[in-house]
Amino acid sequence: MKKQAIGFIDSGVGGLTVVKEAMRQLPNESIYYVGDTARCPYGPRPQEQVLQFTWEMTQFLLSKDIKMLVIACNTATAVALEDIKKKLAIPVIGVIMPGSRAAIKSTSNNRVGIIGTEGTVKSKMYEQLIHDKDNQVEVISLACPKFVPLVESNEYRSAIAKKVVAETMKPLKNKQLDTLILGCTHYPLLRPIIQNVIGENVTLIDSGAETISEVSTILDYYDLAEKSQKKPSSERKFYTTGSKQMFHDIASQWLGLKELEVEQIHLGTAE
Amino acid sequence: MKKQAIGFIDSGVGGLTVVKEAMRQLPNESIYYVGDTARCPYGPRPQEQVLQFTWEMTQFLLSKDIKMLVIACNTATAVALEDIKKKLAIPVIGVIMPGSRAAIKSTSNNRVGIIGTEGTVKSKMYEQLIHDKDNQVEVISLACPKFVPLVESNEYRSAIAKKVVAETMKPLKNKQLDTLILGCTHYPLLRPIIQNVIGENVTLIDSGAETISEVSTILDYYDLAEKSQKKPSSERKFYTTGSKQMFHDIASQWLGLKELEVEQIHLGTAE
Repeated sequence: MKKQAIGFIDSGVGGLTVVKEAMRQLPNESIYYVGDTARCPYGPRPQEQVLQFTWEMTQFLLSKDIKMLVIACNTATAVALEDIKKKLAIPVIGVIMPGSRAAIKSTSNNRVGIIGTEGTVKSKMYEQLIHDKDNQVEVISLACPKFVPLVESNEYRSAIAKKVVAETMKPLKNKQLDTLILGCTHYPLLRPIIQNVIGENVTLIDSGAETISEVSTILDYYDLAEKSQKKPSSERKFYTTGSKQMFHDIASQWLGLKELEVEQIHLGTAE
Repeated sequence: MKKQAIGFIDSGVGGLTVVKEAMRQLPNESIYYVGDTARCPYGPRPQEQVLQFTWEMTQFLLSKDIKMLVIACNTATAVALEDIKKKLAIPVIGVIMPGSRAAIKSTSNNRVGIIGTEGTVKSKMYEQLIHDKDNQVEVISLACPKFVPLVESNEYRSAIAKKVVAETMKPLKNKQLDTLILGCTHYPLLRPIIQNVIGENVTLIDSGAETISEVSTILDYYDLAEKSQKKPSSERKFYTTGSKQMFHDIASQWLGLKELEVEQIHLGTAE
């Protein structure tokens, strides 16, 4: 029987941080990834557009017969998760619930920060999910619209990145946070800089890593998980709507893979 | 509508470490707990007996209309999870899968240790589940049959406990483990001593805490989670087959609760 892949979708390269965890925690699983780099960032876009773009990526992966869909993008999760989950027969998982859950698990002083795109912060979905579970937790959110472009332009380790992160995150200083959710899958690439700015005592929650625990739970629960084989046979395919070369550079670097199958695709009406 | 509780079962007080995490991570959920203290420990018992006892606790909680069952005991999970999960209409979760998953997530050098009861270690269920997911991980198991009696007799912070733990765990020294699964829900009560013996660099996996993340995932997935109310209304009830006083002492201490509703019950043929 042909192995079915898990599908991952993101506005660009950010979801690769989720894929990296999937490769580590679920090495037997095949992975198909779509990064809508040509239309990234999603953060400042109107909801209807994010919903439409997310459905376009989803339809593309459904045509590849995936067994589960991971919306590896906070902005798309906030807007499209409920709709897509309701309409698909396969399990669909977003990145906001796992991040919220992990923050509640992590915090001792009940003061949790969230950084994300404008779209994610405006949606207030993290606050809502955290408060649904535990209304004793205080949640402080901050939109960081400059972070995604830094990552997508492969500038995420530059001196500029350090400056931008330090300036953007100033409002979170002296807020007594003990936990900070990286509420955008692009942000783990900026992790060392973010940790340095916010301080060593704050636990950073990588919603991507948490999402993979949840993917693993649901795979097991539905008996969909691939078991180890003598000969490894998992397949990884990457699709981007933007520059194949740029995507290949960031992905191979971040995932530590020399050989990487990247294909350029067109979705809807590229801008 | 009456709130339905999550049911927890254990051979004794060990499952309280799972309940503690449930109270922390899922404060809105009602909890019913059965500890089969009169017939504890389960570790050295034959499988058929463990299966029978676990079903007796399950039947008791089903009569209380629980919405989900957590087998908060590694020995009972190894023997009875599959059977009970197959036969019940509500979600059923054990502690071994979440612990295995968390160990894979935690390890960097692929050397994971497991300590547990004789029953759990003999079942090889941790090894099997870890290898099904990632056969690159080396797993080293050690049965620690003296640990549960230390906890059940409320001796878990004594000088004797320190000595017993240090002697029992000697075979794990110099094994280059970076992760150790506390493969018995009683063991988190011995956590400071275990951490001291194994060294600060080894990450201890509390399968109970991990199990609650999984409970939370499944509750959300099935839309069974309780949301925060203005007036907290969650209910906690504890049932023991043994001494009400002893159970009350350990539970109130461990859970940090002064008021605790404990009832003694009889299951099957108490020995």
